[in-house]
Amino acid sequence: VRQGFEEVVYCQGKATPHLVKIYQTLTAEGIDVLGTRASREQYEAVKEAIPEAVWDEVSRVLKVEKRDRKRIGRIVVCTGGTADVPVAEEAAQVAEFFGTKVTRLYDVGVAGIHRLLSNMKAFQGASCVIAVAGMEGALAGVVAGLVDVPVIAVPTSVGYGANFGGLSALLTMLNSCANGITTVNIDNGYGAAYVATQINRLACGGRHLSEEVVEEEKDE
Amino acid sequence: VRQGFEEVVYCQGKATPHLVKIYQTLTAEGIDVLGTRASREQYEAVKEAIPEAVWDEVSRVLKVEKRDRKRIGRIVVCTGGTADVPVAEEAAQVAEFFGTKVTRLYDVGVAGIHRLLSNMKAFQGASCVIAVAGMEGALAGVVAGLVDVPVIAVPTSVGYGANFGGLSALLTMLNSCANGITTVNIDNGYGAAYVATQINRLACGGRHLSEEVVEEEKDE
Amino acid sequence: VRQGFEEVVYCQGKATPHLVKIYQTLTAEGIDVLGTRASREQYEAVKEAIPEAVWDEVSRVLKVEKRDRKRIGRIVVCTGGTADVPVAEEAAQVAEFFGTKVTRLYDVGVAGIHRLLSNMKAFQGASCVIAVAGMEGALAGVVAGLVDVPVIAVPTSVGYGANFGGLSALLTMLNSCANGITTVNIDNGYGAAYVATQINRLACGGRHLSEEVVEEEKDE
Amino acid sequence: VRQGFEEVVYCQGKATPHLVKIYQTLTAEGIDVLGTRASREQYEAVKEAIPEAVWDEVSRVLKVEKRDRKRIGRIVVCTGGTADVPVAEEAAQVAEFFGTKVTRLYDVGVAGIHRLLSNMKAFQGASCVIAVAGMEGALAGVVAGLVDVPVIAVPTSVGYGANFGGLSALLTMLNSCANGITTVNIDNGYGAAYVATQINRLACGGRHLSEEVVEEEKDE
Amino acid sequence: VRQGFEEVVYCQGKATPHLVKIYQTLTAEGIDVLGTRASREQYEAVKEAIPEAVWDEVSRVLKVEKRDRKRIGRIVVCTGGTADVPVAEEAAQVAEFFGTKVTRLYDVGVAGIHRLLSNMKAFQGASCVIAVAGMEGALAGVVAGLVDVPVIAVPTSVGYGANFGGLSALLTMLNSCANGITTVNIDNGYGAAYVATQINRLACGGRHLSEEVVEEEKDE
Amino acid sequence: VRQGFEEVVYCQGKATPHLVKIYQTLTAEGIDVLGTRASREQYEAVKEAIPEAVWDEVSRVLKVEKRDRKRIGRIVVCTGGTADVPVAEEAAQVAEFFGTKVTRLYDVGVAGIHRLLSNMKAFQGASCVIAVAGMEGALAGVVAGLVDVPVIAVPTSVGYGANFGGLSALLTMLNSCANGITTVNIDNGYGAAYVATQINRLACGGRHLSEEVVEEEKDE
Amino acid sequence: VRQGFEEVVYCQGKATPHLVKIYQTLTAEGIDVLGTRASREQYEAVKEAIPEAVWDEVSRVLKVEKRDRKRIGRIVVCTGGTADVPVAEEAAQVAEFFGTKVTRLYDVGVAGIHRLLSNMKAFQGASCVIAVAGMEGALAGVVAGLVDVPVIAVPTSVGYGANFGGLSALLTMLNSCANGITTVNIDNGYGAAYVATQINRLACGGRHLSEEVVEEEKDE
Amino acid sequence: VRQGFEEVVYCQGKATPHLVKIYQTLTAEGIDVLGTRASREQYEAVKEAIPEAVWDEVSRVLKVEKRDRKRIGRIVVCTGGTADVPVAEEAAQVAEFFGTKVTRLYDVGVAGIHRLLSNMKAFQGASCVIAVAGMEGALAGVVAGLVDVPVIAVPTSVGYGANFGGLSALLTMLNSCANGITTVNIDNGYGAAYVATQINRLACGGRHLSEEVVEEEKDE
Ligand SMILES: Nc1ncnc2c1ncn2[C@@H]1O[C@H](COP(=O)(O)O)[C@@H](O)[C@H]1O
Ligand SMILES: Nc1ncnc2c1ncn2[C@@H]1O[C@H](COP(=O)(O)O)[C@@H](O)[C@H]1O
Ligand SMILES: Nc1ncnc2c1ncn2[C@@H]1O[C@H](COP(=O)(O)O)[C@@H](O)[C@H]1O
Ligand SMILES: Nc1ncnc2c1ncn2[C@@H]1O[C@H](COP(=O)(O)O)[C@@H](O)[C@H]1O
Ligand SMILES: [Mg+2]
Ligand SMILES: [Mg+2]
Ligand SMILES: [Mg+2]
Ligand SMILES: [Mg+2]
Ligand SMILES: [Mg+2]
Ligand SMILES: [Mg+2]
Ligand SMILES: [Mg+2]
Ligand SMILES: [Mg+2]
Repeated sequence: VRQGFEEVVYCQGKATPHLVKIYQTLTAEGIDVLGTRASREQYEAVKEAIPEAVWDEVSRVLKVEKRDRKRIGRIVVCTGGTADVPVAEEAAQVAEFFGTKVTRLYDVGVAGIHRLLSNMKAFQGASCVIAVAGMEGALAGVVAGLVDVPVIAVPTSVGYGANFGGLSALLTMLNSCANGITTVNIDNGYGAAYVATQINRLACGGRHLSEEVVEEEKDE
Repeated sequence: VRQGFEEVVYCQGKATPHLVKIYQTLTAEGIDVLGTRASREQYEAVKEAIPEAVWDEVSRVLKVEKRDRKRIGRIVVCTGGTADVPVAEEAAQVAEFFGTKVTRLYDVGVAGIHRLLSNMKAFQGASCVIAVAGMEGALAGVVAGLVDVPVIAVPTSVGYGANFGGLSALLTMLNSCANGITTVNIDNGYGAAYVATQINRLACGGRHLSEEVVEEEKDE
Repeated sequence: VRQGFEEVVYCQGKATPHLVKIYQTLTAEGIDVLGTRASREQYEAVKEAIPEAVWDEVSRVLKVEKRDRKRIGRIVVCTGGTADVPVAEEAAQVAEFFGTKVTRLYDVGVAGIHRLLSNMKAFQGASCVIAVAGMEGALAGVVAGLVDVPVIAVPTSVGYGANFGGLSALLTMLNSCANGITTVNIDNGYGAAYVATQINRLACGGRHLSEEVVEEEKDE
Repeated sequence: VRQGFEEVVYCQGKATPHLVKIYQTLTAEGIDVLGTRASREQYEAVKEAIPEAVWDEVSRVLKVEKRDRKRIGRIVVCTGGTADVPVAEEAAQVAEFFGTKVTRLYDVGVAGIHRLLSNMKAFQGASCVIAVAGMEGALAGVVAGLVDVPVIAVPTSVGYGANFGGLSALLTMLNSCANGITTVNIDNGYGAAYVATQINRLACGGRHLSEEVVEEEKDE
Repeated sequence: VRQGFEEVVYCQGKATPHLVKIYQTLTAEGIDVLGTRASREQYEAVKEAIPEAVWDEVSRVLKVEKRDRKRIGRIVVCTGGTADVPVAEEAAQVAEFFGTKVTRLYDVGVAGIHRLLSNMKAFQGASCVIAVAGMEGALAGVVAGLVDVPVIAVPTSVGYGANFGGLSALLTMLNSCANGITTVNIDNGYGAAYVATQINRLACGGRHLSEEVVEEEKDE
Repeated sequence: VRQGFEEVVYCQGKATPHLVKIYQTLTAEGIDVLGTRASREQYEAVKEAIPEAVWDEVSRVLKVEKRDRKRIGRIVVCTGGTADVPVAEEAAQVAEFFGTKVTRLYDVGVAGIHRLLSNMKAFQGASCVIAVAGMEGALAGVVAGLVDVPVIAVPTSVGYGANFGGLSALLTMLNSCANGITTVNIDNGYGAAYVATQINRLACGGRHLSEEVVEEEKDE
Repeated sequence: VRQGFEEVVYCQGKATPHLVKIYQTLTAEGIDVLGTRASREQYEAVKEAIPEAVWDEVSRVLKVEKRDRKRIGRIVVCTGGTADVPVAEEAAQVAEFFGTKVTRLYDVGVAGIHRLLSNMKAFQGASCVIAVAGMEGALAGVVAGLVDVPVIAVPTSVGYGANFGGLSALLTMLNSCANGITTVNIDNGYGAAYVATQINRLACGGRHLSEEVVEEEKDE
Repeated sequence: VRQGFEEVVYCQGKATPHLVKIYQTLTAEGIDVLGTRASREQYEAVKEAIPEAVWDEVSRVLKVEKRDRKRIGRIVVCTGGTADVPVAEEAAQVAEFFGTKVTRLYDVGVAGIHRLLSNMKAFQGASCVIAVAGMEGALAGVVAGLVDVPVIAVPTSVGYGANFGGLSALLTMLNSCANGITTVNIDNGYGAAYVATQINRLACGGRHLSEEVVEEEKDE
């Protein structure tokens, strides 16, 4: 069974020639590939081998996407500040790559709660929310207090001093007294996108991630 | 709008007379109540005031449930060991109180991986899984590698020494390389049950937790 | 120079006979005394020696206050949940003992941000705010985003698991991206009240804490 | 309403072209801008676009200040050692940018307590003190024991080994038994300056930070 | 060779009958014994067997001392607050038991630096200083800045919240920028007394702890 | 007594000329040398002096091995992911250098438990297993649940965020509820290989590591 | 296949009636049982049901052992101090229950290295060593420097202050630069005994733990 | 009063021109200067200005020493491994600069306890010992068990993984059960040398560090 979209490569730390080979092998089999945490150097090497490769400097996502995938349902990806956008974009682009519609709502952190409150309509109809925040990380709890769908909290390493590399935001999210929050690893946009896609598919009537793929393949 | 089932009380640290009053006020209004982390002493005082009150020694859940709530969908609650059962039961009973069907699968931790593998059919058709584990906490990752629905990981404080009160299981779960895991606070069965119910409702075609309630009320 | 109101005793860990002696010596000199973290047993012993002694079970404040102190200015003491009230009351009562008017606004945590937003008028005219919160501790940042006076954040040890005895709330507050927050030790209502009183006096045109006292004494 | 002085930019991590644009947009609207943690490279790019830009190598503050702002009241900024001066200067220059008079008192740490004691007159008339210290961080407590106004403690990451990136100074300050101390994040000179300005305005009879601005604007 | 005074017993956790036996065996051989961290219950049992046993409730030192030991040299034991006295007394009494003259200077912590400064003469002629402090633990650094002999810093677990069981004072002391400080474990009055005695003997012209004993024995 | 194979050099941090000299001295005496954590630059310098030197880029092992050592028994080295291979290869090559037969089984982590289960025959007849894993580190516990020989767990620093430099995998391994696991330091492939060789020799009827060597030398 | 001796029960936290049932069921089937961390209360209840039950107050091991098991090979269990004996005895008795000969060598910690050095003959012929130590935990490294068989290090929670519940000894052991050490969880005597038995059997020519049992059963 | 030798400069982080100026000013006044943690670049700049400047690459000590200082007494500086030598040399050279005779004993760590034991005569007559060790840091406790003078323990950041930047050695030293150990900050060779010099002077009959200087000056 061809599954395709499940091919997400974690580029960080992979030797460039090795990475190019992975991309070549997969695309040769007609499989679309998305890499996370790709460096510019890795991008340039892959691009030379596969001209369709596109790289987003902010999210460091490196994609070779040939199929025109139908997107279903809808999730919201929001951030506390602009420094959290790289992680949020990793989440958003992975979710889109997996066939999920994404609404972005960036820089609505609790320091300016009014920006969030005046954008509540963006959450309507979403099957779940990915809340990305560093420093104090309070966004996730505030959002969960306002919506009734699952909030997947992504702490980021944004900040300095007593943020201890993301620990502060992580603890905030784990200890939130708002209902409906679960948490992933610091800076793990990918992991949040994966779960959000699972939930979105369930909400769209699909059962599971891999079955869904199989069924869709048959439709083509 | 009457919502009722959302009344979950966190009993720990509440003065007994104060707790009795909360139970009396709510049940007087016809609202069902579930309390978590209730002590035997709290139970006995509530029981005296409200004879229908039932208490489960293992999970420390204290319930006054008069409505006969229809349960929908299905989730699995599994544990690594028997010492994790109190937290698992808090999760299972809260989910049931919120109207979710629950399959229990206890003591299937990775030390005896065969017990888990020979019970994989229990996961079929479940909209999500709550994996409860202390000590090394590896259960969540193993389960997530085997199923395609969201796994909500609940680290427990079970263990000693370098478990540091649940930190070891928490870090294991946050760092899992399996896809589809999110994590809640140490021993937070309640929080896992809340999110699992949200996901289960989405999978059953209901939209949100509170809307769902409203619709159901109309059906009566 | 008699100063009186500066007599705050930290009762925890003090032997009861020793504590009674402290209260007797001070009150014999006409000095009002406030003790923090007093146990019921300590209260009963002091009460026997000094019938005017009053004790508040929630805040564990044990007071012998004979002078009828004029209160000036105004501060707000708010909490995230009801479990934070003991610390908040320590802060509020110490501030009042030091001659500060206090507005209480409890249980307005971010899980229910609407309760906070519909009470914004309480903050008008306050010279500063003491924000008391445990678990995720996000209240301080949200309040600081809404007001323009200093917010003194008091993390509490309320919570369990990954709250690590108040560390989670402490880190949240230290890392807040809202402007105008400073933080004191976990559960240190007393310390927050002291600084809030200093700020309130400055705002009322008084210069310093001890000079203020001296001037006021002369007025009598 | 034009507010102007509230424009403080956190330069660290911002792409240089993006930062230049921010400075251009604001100054084009006649708004003064102060950036913290600006690199030399960022400075040179901004300077090219806006020749009035000035950069201080020590504090890494990058300013475009055209209005000749009246400074009011007075605060003291003191440090334990010379290695703490960069953080102290960030605090001092931000406070001045916000219209506060600042007295600097550097290198008066507790290892040489006599230098501090022989400079006590510098504190007279100050509305509050910013105490900046790394390593053991004891300066804040010693100063608070000597003055009667609020002391805002800024732990720095100066030191090595068991300073754990500023944790040692942070814990010292949070645990001080001196009255009148509150603490901000490690190396957070900006945050301390913001609160100090709020307190200084209250002491000068102004009410709040933004109202103050509004009133002042009217005066022009 | 009879050495005697080296017999210091760590009573905590020892079964009472076992402890009584230790005391009996040693005293039967004419050896003086000092026990640290002895409970009242342990004291009463030892007392019954050896009527000369004396116990100090504050320091929890339990002594059977029959020889009339000459004390030499002089050290100072000082504390930040009164809550640190139990640890300080353990240090002082152990040092005295080892034959060292001790000057006590309690409650001179940095919150009231003037008390310390007006008692500097107490340090004159001392061969070293034991500085005992909890909470922020700044006393050791301040003292080391004022004297020219070694300062042995003893952090205590006194405090709450972010003192993390003595960690705050420990880190303060390890990171002190004053010259001449070394540190022992949290609450380890005994260990400080041992080293102070070694230094004191060196300063008195004796060479080592055990040789010293031997020589002294001969003098008798 | 010539021992030879015990010459393992820890290259990291050694000055290149110094390292070259160590290799020259030992090989001049006919002793084989294996260096761990050697950089390319160190390799090139050693190679210039000793042309037989070989370096493995992945494991960073730098070897001069002239004797043709007989390998005995058998151990398994397995990894959770491909990023753990450098540490695993350090272990495998050191064990081989010490005369142990090694079976490699890489990338069989718990996220894909089926790969491990379908390779169980590789463990048959092995005297012990070295399980190398980062991130959640669950591999060691799963393997120990499946085999009956000692499992030496090597946590790696592979991962990001809340892996805290390998702490997450370390705690997982220390807290495993599977029987038969012991743990070495993070990334310590060398240490695991040493113990595995000791066990393998015991299983092969040899007594100890150094005696074994002596005996073997005699055989030549 | 009957295996019997593998029945080790972790008693801590198990309800007494539940524990009695476990013991009854197993002994009824002729299986010997050893329980670790059994309380006196648990012992008395089990004793009432099974008069042959014996309990050791020091190690808290609760045994029903009817078979007269032949012991093979030999291991050494040593401790740094007497306070580590409870953990050491858990290890020693479990190893004996599993059929291993055990030599005990207690209170030979590094503070008195001579006691260890004058007992080196005890290590001759042992297949491995279990080194149990709290506080600084240096014993394991010293022993590993002196012997050539695997040393299984067991950190204990013995100590106070900066031992942080056993963390200090744990880190010491993990970071030992002596060859041949692996580490188990804090206070985990059981886990060390399990691995030591595995190694001892390999050294005695048996292959694996469970096979060994099977073979032995046949011999009877 | 001229004191001279107290001029020790902490070079790390100081701007090169600033550092050159410090050296020039002091040497111009005839004061000898020793700098710690000086980089090669700093050395070269100072050398250009002051040709007598000498720099030791290992310890990174940068000295301008014109006076021919008489050295008194004797201390021992020992290390666990060769990687600890830079810190040990900082200690040794600072002590010598302060007029103390130093015996070096390097690479005698507990992994090879015999090297230490066969060198015990080196400790005879020393007034105190500086024990420098990383990784497990057990050297200090072993030495203190063997000698009767104060042992100043210097943990180093040497190691990797669970050494956590020197934390492992620090905790080992703080928790040592040997008598006569005190500890300084991680890698703080300077601090140890300062205290060792104080003790050495006391043992030589001098009273204090600065008095000693004064007296010596008079002798010239
Ligand atoms: N940013 C990321 N963080 C965590 N896991 C990731 C990330 N990107 C990809 N992955 C996971 O890593 C797997 C690929 O790893 P690899 O085979 O090393 O490329 C994917 O299937 C994902 O499960
Ligand atoms: N075991 C639990 N852990 C965390 N939160 C809980 C738990 N049980 C109940 N809650 C939450 O606590 C709320 C009730 O808190 P309270 O008003 O203090 O009784 C519920 O609505 C839940 O959101
Ligand atoms: N709850 C509290 N937390 C911290 N410090 C306190 C508290 N209550 C009182 N204090 C301080 O403790 C001092 C009295 O301590 P004591 O002399 O031990 O009674 C007061 O002057 C305050 O500075
Ligand atoms: N990667 C490693 N990690 C830990 N210890 C090692 C490593 N490689 C070698 N060693 C140890 O370091 C010793 C050599 O250290 P050195 O004398 O500094 O080269 C060897 O005998 C081993 O005990
Ligand atoms: Mg919600
Ligand atoms: Mg899955
Ligand atoms: Mg504000
Ligand atoms: Mg003050
Ligand atoms: Mg000094
Ligand atoms: Mg096994
Ligand atoms: Mg060995
Ligand atoms: Mg000694």
